[in-house]
This record gives sequence, C-alpha cells and structure tokens, in this order.
Amino acid sequence: MATATLPSVTSRVLNSTLEARIMSAEEAAALIHFGTRIGMSGFTGAGYPKAVPMALARRISDANLRGQKSQVSIFTGASTGPELDGALAMAGGIQLRLPYQSDPETRKRINAGEMEYMDIHLGHVAQYVEYGFLGKMDWALVEVTAILEDGRLVPSSSVGNNRTWIEQAEKVIVEVNAWQPAALEGMHDIYYGLEPPPNRKPIPLVHTGQRIGTPYLHVPLDKVAAVVLTDSPDRNSAFKAPDESSRRIAGHILDFLGWEVQKGRIPNSLLPLQSGVGNIANAVLFGLLEAPFENMTSYTEVIQDGMIELLRSGKLTCASATAFSLSPEMLAQVNAEMATYHDRIILRPQEISNHAEIIRRLGVIGMNGMIEADIYGNVNSTHIMGSRIQNGIGGSGDFARNGYLSIFMAPSIAQKGAITTIVPMVSHVDHTEHDVDVIVTEQGLADLRGLSPRQRAKLIIDRCAHPDYRALLLDYQERAERLSFGKHTPHMLNESLRWHNRYVRSGHMLPSEE
Amino acid sequence: MATATLPSVTSRVLNSTLEARIMSAEEAAALIHFGTRIGMSGFTGAGYPKAVPMALARRISDANLRGQKSQVSIFTGASTGPELDGALAMAGGIQLRLPYQSDPETRKRINAGEMEYMDIHLGHVAQYVEYGFLGKMDWALVEVTAILEDGRLVPSSSVGNNRTWIEQAEKVIVEVNAWQPAALEGMHDIYYGLEPPPNRKPIPLVHTGQRIGTPYLHVPLDKVAAVVLTDSPDRNSAFKAPDESSRRIAGHILDFLGWEVQKGRIPNSLLPLQSGVGNIANAVLFGLLEAPFENMTSYTEVIQDGMIELLRSGKLTCASATAFSLSPEMLAQVNAEMATYHDRIILRPQEISNHAEIIRRLGVIGMNGMIEADIYGNVNSTHIMGSRIQNGIGGSGDFARNGYLSIFMAPSIAQKGAITTIVPMVSHVDHTEHDVDVIVTEQGLADLRGLSPRQRAKLIIDRCAHPDYRALLLDYQERAERLSFGKHTPHMLNESLRWHNRYVRSGHMLPSEE
Repeated sequence: MATATLPSVTSRVLNSTLEARIMSAEEAAALIHFGTRIGMSGFTGAGYPKAVPMALARRISDANLRGQKSQVSIFTGASTGPELDGALAMAGGIQLRLPYQSDPETRKRINAGEMEYMDIHLGHVAQYVEYGFLGKMDWALVEVTAILEDGRLVPSSSVGNNRTWIEQAEKVIVEVNAWQPAALEGMHDIYYGLEPPPNRKPIPLVHTGQRIGTPYLHVPLDKVAAVVLTDSPDRNSAFKAPDESSRRIAGHILDFLGWEVQKGRIPNSLLPLQSGVGNIANAVLFGLLEAPFENMTSYTEVIQDGMIELLRSGKLTCASATAFSLSPEMLAQVNAEMATYHDRIILRPQEISNHAEIIRRLGVIGMNGMIEADIYGNVNSTHIMGSRIQNGIGGSGDFARNGYLSIFMAPSIAQKGAITTIVPMVSHVDHTEHDVDVIVTEQGLADLRGLSPRQRAKLIIDRCAHPDYRALLLDYQERAERLSFGKHTPHMLNESLRWHNRYVRSGHMLPSEE
Repeated sequence: MATATLPSVTSRVLNSTLEARIMSAEEAAALIHFGTRIGMSGFTGAGYPKAVPMALARRISDANLRGQKSQVSIFTGASTGPELDGALAMAGGIQLRLPYQSDPETRKRINAGEMEYMDIHLGHVAQYVEYGFLGKMDWALVEVTAILEDGRLVPSSSVGNNRTWIEQAEKVIVEVNAWQPAALEGMHDIYYGLEPPPNRKPIPLVHTGQRIGTPYLHVPLDKVAAVVLTDSPDRNSAFKAPDESSRRIAGHILDFLGWEVQKGRIPNSLLPLQSGVGNIANAVLFGLLEAPFENMTSYTEVIQDGMIELLRSGKLTCASATAFSLSPEMLAQVNAEMATYHDRIILRPQEISNHAEIIRRLGVIGMNGMIEADIYGNVNSTHIMGSRIQNGIGGSGDFARNGYLSIFMAPSIAQKGAITTIVPMVSHVDHTEHDVDVIVTEQGLADLRGLSPRQRAKLIIDRCAHPDYRALLLDYQERAERLSFGKHTPHMLNESLRWHNRYVRSGHMLPSEE
C-alpha cells in the first residue's frame, strides 16, 4: 500500500485543506464506528476503495478476537474487489450488504445465513437512499483519481453511487489512487439535476453521447474526515475467449437483430445496446465486429473488452456506462491510451446509466445472462435452486423492464448436463413473463413477443431446450395442458419444482441420473 | 340500439364527410374480415364500443353455425363491458386477446385453453404495437362522444390506447355514443409528441394537472370506413360499501402514510396516488377523506367513486387517469355535473398515465391489490393456484416498479379461510421481491424496505398472516432456515407449493381440512 511519502501520489491532492487531512488507512479506518452504514465506491472490480476497507477489516478481526461484536453495513455501486468485499466478509464484518456482489466469501456467508443481503435494482439504490428508506448514511468511502485545487474530485474508473454517498453521508473518506490514469479527468458526466419528488424535472439526456452534467464530484470540504493515498490496481477477471456455446448464442442474437433491421423495426445502427457482464455478453460484442451494423452506440453499465474493440473498429461510435470492467490485458492498453477515448466513452452515475426514464426514451436493447428460464418465459437471474443467491439482479431489471427489447441468454445446460437452463417452473423469479421478449441458448432463439403462455412453452422447448431435456419438458407441458387446474399457464404444482428438488438431493436434475 | 334517425345522435357528427359514412352496426361489422387484428377502445366498463362488437359476434356465431372457423384478435385499453368481451367470447370469436380482461366468459375460455391471452403491462401496449412487435393492426374500433366539423374526435369516458389504434390501424370505425355527456369535451389530454426511438424526447409532464397535448383525437378522414351511432350506457360494477376487512387495510395504509409524512420523507400533500380498481382501493380513498392530508393529487389509471368524493371535499386537488370507473349511481351524478370537473380531472392515453418516465418522475405512490404474497415479498397478481388467470397484471407493474412506493394489499384469507394470502412461495410471480415495498392485510402492515429475505419473512408472517396460518408459515420458514440448500431465501422445494396443490386437490389449503 502506498503512503503519503510518494511524490507521484501527493501530487494528486492539489487542495491544501484536504492535503492536511491525509492520513494512513489505519488512521482513517479508526474513525469509523461499528454499527454504521457506509456507502462505498466500486462497480465491478473498478474504482472501489482499496486501503481503508482492509484496515477496517483488520480492526473488526481484532475486535472479534476480543469478543466484541463489530459490524458495519456496506452499500456500494455493485460488486467490488477482494480488498473490499472479500476482506470485510472474511472478517465477518458485514451486517447488511447491498446491492450486488460477486465475491466468493461474501456469497458463502450470505448463503450460510450469516450475513443479510438485500438484492435491489441498481437503478433504484440512489433514490432509495435519498428517500431515506435505508436509514441515515454515516460514511462515504470513495476512491478518486485526484483532488483539484478547489476541492472538486476527479472520479476514478467507476462512478456508481458516489454522488449519492457523498451527498447523503455525514462524513467522507476519500482514497486518492495514483494508479488510476490522470487522463480519466474529463471522461465522467455527473448529473446534479435530480431533485426528489414532487420537484423532479425531465432528465435532459436524449442520446448516448450527450453530456448533461459536470466531470467532477462535489464535496463540501468540511465533510471530508480523511484523505488516504493509494497506488493499487483495479482487479477484474481475465477475459476468456468465447467458447463454442457463447459463439452460437451470439450468432443467434446477431441473426435476430439483423432480421429486426430487415423488418424495418430498428435502424441499421441498431438502438443503444446494453450488455450484462460476462463471457457470453462479450461474445456478442465480439460478434458485432463482424456484423453488418454500423454507427452503433452502447448505453450500458460497464465497458467490457468487446466494447473497446468495437470502439477501435469504428463500428461503435460511443459508449455510455458507469464503470470500466476490463480484463487486465485490455485494462493496461486502455489506461495507456485513455485520452483517445475522451470523446467516445462517458462514465455516469448508475442512477443515470440505469434510469428507467432514459432507458425507455433511448429504446435500449438489453442483453442479459440468466440462471434459468421456464417454459412460460419467466427468468431467474439470481438464485440457484430457488434459495442460494449467486450475485444479485444487478441492472438487468432496469433494462429488461424499460428497454426496447429484453433478451436473456445462457447455455442450455450447466454442470455437464446436471442442470437444465430451461425448466418447467423457475425456482425464483427476477424477470416476469411480462418482461422477457427473447430467450436464447446455444440451441436457438425463442421470440416470445405476442405469444400466450402455451404458445411460448412450445417455442421455448423447441428452440432453446437441450436435447437431453426436451422430451421431458414436452412431457411435462403436455400433461400439464391436460391436468392443470387452469389452462392459461398449465402447471402441475406437485411436479413443477421436482427437478430442482432432485438436484438438491442427488446432484442431477434428470431422473435417470438420480 | 340507437339508429341514425335520432336527432340527438346525428347532431354529434358535425363533419359532413364522416356523416356520409354513417351506417348500421351490422353494416360496419360486415366490413371486418376474419383473422384480422382489431384495436378497440375501452378501459374498464367505460368508453368501449357497444354496437359493432355485438354485431361482429353475431356474424361470427352465424359463420360458426355454417362450420366456418371465424375469429379476430382483440386488443383494447384494458377490460371492457359485456357487449364487447362477453359477446365476442361467447361466440368463440377471439383468437388472441390482450392486455387485460375481467369478463367471466372471457376468463372461462382462456382457462379452458380455448383462447390465447397475452398478459402485458398496460403501459407497454402502445409501444409494442408501434414497434411492430404484435403485427400490423387492421382495424381501430373506437367509441367517441362526438365528431367535430373538422373531423377531430371528442373522446368518451376512457382514452386507453385509442390514439395508437387510430394511428396504427389501416381502417377505422368510429362509434359515436350520444349517451356520453357532451361536457366531456375538453377533459382529455392526448399527447402526440411520442416518437419511436432513436428520436424520442423527454415527455414534458412534471405535475399531475399539467396538459401537454390536445383534447381531441386526430384521424385522417379517408381512414374512417364507418361511423355508427349508439346511445348506450357504460357499465361498471356497483360499488360495495367497504367491509370491515377493507376498512382495516385502509387504516393500516393511512397510518403508514402519516408516519412517512412525520418522518419528513413526503410532504403532507403526500405524493401523487395511484390506486388499483376495486373495493379495497376505494376504501383507502374513502379513508383519505378523514385523514389529515391536504392538497393531494392522484396520478392513476381510473377515476373511482372514492376519488370523486375526495375531489368534492377539496382534499384532492386534481386527478389524472385514462378512464372513469364509477358505480352506476356515482356515474349518473358525475355525468350530470361533468363541467364542474373540467379543471380537476384529466383523461390521458394509457401510455402516458402508465408511463415509466412519468411515474418515476412524479414519485407516484402505487397501491394495488394482489392475489397472494409469499413470505419473502414476491407478489402474485394474476394467477389462481399458479395456472388460472384472473384478470391480468394491468398497470400494477408500471407503478410498482417505477413509483416512489409500492404497496400491495389484500385480505389475509379468501374463501372463508380455505386460501391464505400469505404463502410459503407464490404460485406465480408478477412483482418480484425487488419491487414490493409494503404488504398489507387486515392483520397489519409489513414495511419491507431495507430488509433481507429472512428478515422480510419474519415480519410478513408476524404482521400480515391470518392467525389460522401463522404457525404453519412459521414452521415452514424455521424448517427451511435449517434445511434449505441456500439460506439467503430459504425454501424446501418439495413443500413450497404444497398448500396450493392441496387446495387444487381438496379445496382447502389447510392440512387439517383436507
């Protein structure tokens, strides 16, 4: 961890009042009382505070050793890195966590019933806090790239809920990370025009590349209790080259989009694309490099590797997001050439990147991964076998509900066939039948628009189910059509979750493998 | 049915081109080919066409007798009256129906698997059609109050999707209903500023009473194939005086709102209120008459009896909706004094009354009925025992997802206790755990904001469950916390839908009653 003696670091704190508040991570962490609510920066492994959370975790561990129960509630932008979620979860230091996590230790604790986790739409967090629904915010702990002479903050590689945390918290700790490229300055667009109702006005954003705010975060200087200097890299996962299944899923989606263009429903530049985090999403983005669409834009949550390639190729003219989420290799390249993206990448607060009003207005095409879908078109994005949380809903609901088209995608099987993605009834619902337009697996694509539940079932089984499960699904569906209490959405409730239950018991959904 | 000879009726058609196209309902119905898609007016029992659908149903019945399969697809605003849904369903004349229905015959046919029904958010219908997702619209069949000299149409007691039907359909049939009060002229606000993406602009609406459009519907005269004269009343259900259970639910909600005001989260005028259709919603509105809130507004779908009383009392300053949905007694009164509501009631297209952008901006408080909720806060609004459709999701999703607060309410038991509203797992999900802030039964109110699933479960069982089911719910939840695969949302999948299955088998959810 870097200290105040590094000249490359101190030069990032240009305001003398705040320079006087530079202290060590341990000193800053010592200011935080247990039982408090802390809003932290971070959205995927980008822009999260890297020193104070670890120091806090050590304090908590020490207190625990002394038999003193010591926890804090942690609100972030989304998932973060191991120095935040991992360290604090390991110390048993988190009471309530929201809104999204992907850390293995955090997940383990939640699913062991040892940590409370509230899964909330990413686009709703800021207003929930501003309304006072989640209680008073005690601390904001925010990583920035630099502090300007007048005290304005240059955000780092993610924006997330930082504006809200700084505004709502009683006290603020700023981590200034010298590792973040100085060229990030000017890339952000922080909108300060949101009032709570009844005084809200239209948000003036009408196209992806538009700037409606300022590149800086504002903080009243007297709120800043500590400035901590760091020099630590963001940590996102390495990028896996698309496998055959991802490439086939991407192919189905690109064919579908081409068909929509041919029908005249969308222009050849498509509509602004949102794509969830992960390898399938990246495969779609890489597929777009070869597709016949031009002058595309992206209005999404994270800038992934594939989006950078699309920007480089000129196919994508502009990308709006709230964070970078790049593989280490791509991140090194992008950091070196950051200045060249200044007019083509905009990082916004997540309440804007995920705002219902903007997503609906722009007509965003949402492409998100899923855990499972049922034959009637309901989607589970969060729970394994109905009870075990994976990561959370993230922004998928913001885009699926309010976008132009909502596409959900996953391989048709998981765990070498022990789990089918297409099931009779999903074990948890995150996206209802009313919000799912298209389901895609490597087997094919089901366009559900305008179909009744029974029509959807036939199409989903035919197009998306894995052959090993197709006959079983058809059998369920046909018997349900005969035997169901009502025949609008035919179900046999004594069987509808049997496959999940079998998996829990035996590790395989197929009866023959039990 | 009135004919062209009634002077009071012909005087409503002031445009001579269209006057020349007056014909009987039978002649108009004969223009419609089978297999076509028809967009009809109507939102609850208000403003639906009353003559042509019945004539069409007779044509269909005759064709069926001749062994000729003859159906049409019917898209509306929401539910309609017996002369539309009832007549056409009885004739077996509907192939695909959307987006919401409450007609007994229609429901019976759908649940017998004889009719396709697509349940879609009311706020999404217009854009789905405009995007071309549901295919080409062949006909618009729209009731109006009058036709002006220049051909503009004065809408009647509902607006629904009429602007969209008229714009999108190839041909238009207009029913001019002399029963509708002429004083309706000027009460509507039809917004013509919506473009499809990528050319959408902010909708300028920033407060409930604001007018952003014109009071008239525009139709190219050459599109109008027929004008049919009618003189028939709207048909909405009689209003039941609130029973003890509804009054208790209303009481809990009013206490809660008062508490939110006290906390300083909302002003004493509250925020714009949305309330679903029905007796409980009406009970809340009547309760507001006695509550300490002043200068309230309502941004909702339908104007119900209680809202009229609130307007009369001065407690409510303005109500925006897409339709009237008044009891026959209240309707007679309101029709007689319609002019006095001109500056306080605005009827808008449902794409505006239910628009994500506006609902989010205004911070609407959504109060909707439900069929059941589970202990983790998921809500089923549409399906009895997971398979039998009741009415459809209506606009509840538009408001629950994007409003300031989403409240769901129902008595804690149905069918004299054979059904519990609070269940271990809902049998169908329309509103996910991410979209439900508050659950209310006559037993009490559970404020779920900021809670993890396990915390929600304890609160919902404690506050909302009926005493006859409370111990059983607790037993399920406690065993699930011990035995569940994951402990974030504890479930035992072999038991989670057992109560529903027991009801299907035996008519009672309780094991002791089986």
